[in-house]
Amino acid sequence: MKAKIHVVLKPGVLDPQGKAVEHALHGLGFKGVEDVRQGKYIELKLKSKDRKKAQAEVEKMCKALLANTVIENYSVELAE
Amino acid sequence: MKAKIHVVLKPGVLDPQGKAVEHALHGLGFKGVEDVRQGKYIELKLKSKDRKKAQAEVEKMCKALLANTVIENYSVELAE
Repeated sequence: MKAKIHVVLKPGVLDPQGKAVEHALHGLGFKGVEDVRQGKYIELKLKSKDRKKAQAEVEKMCKALLANTVIENYSVELAE
Repeated sequence: MKAKIHVVLKPGVLDPQGKAVEHALHGLGFKGVEDVRQGKYIELKLKSKDRKKAQAEVEKMCKALLANTVIENYSVELAE
């Protein structure tokens, strides 16, 4: 089973990386760009074939390592 | 209009960041995890309301700044 994980900063948390990208885009002439936010995207394979167990396992991984839940939200999508 | 952009390393390109995450997950007891790949996820807002123009503009941004097309692939999703 494959898992696709998005980790993004919570709304309201300052995103200096996103701001840097926004400024760079403005500098390149893309003036219509606003509110750039940069997050992480992680893909992984799991041996587990049980969807429910896989979902629980990936959420554990997010809480333990992949996301800092104080300032970040995560979402998990599973696919065969 | 909102754009969601995924930038991932091309298949076959070594991903040391993904490997580090994989080792850390194994160390935490998640033994069933394989093939971890880490990419970037970028969200931004565009003033443009024309879908076709927005798509073209975001692809230009990806080529100019957001992705290194020698080693990375990108994908763009637009939403209202």
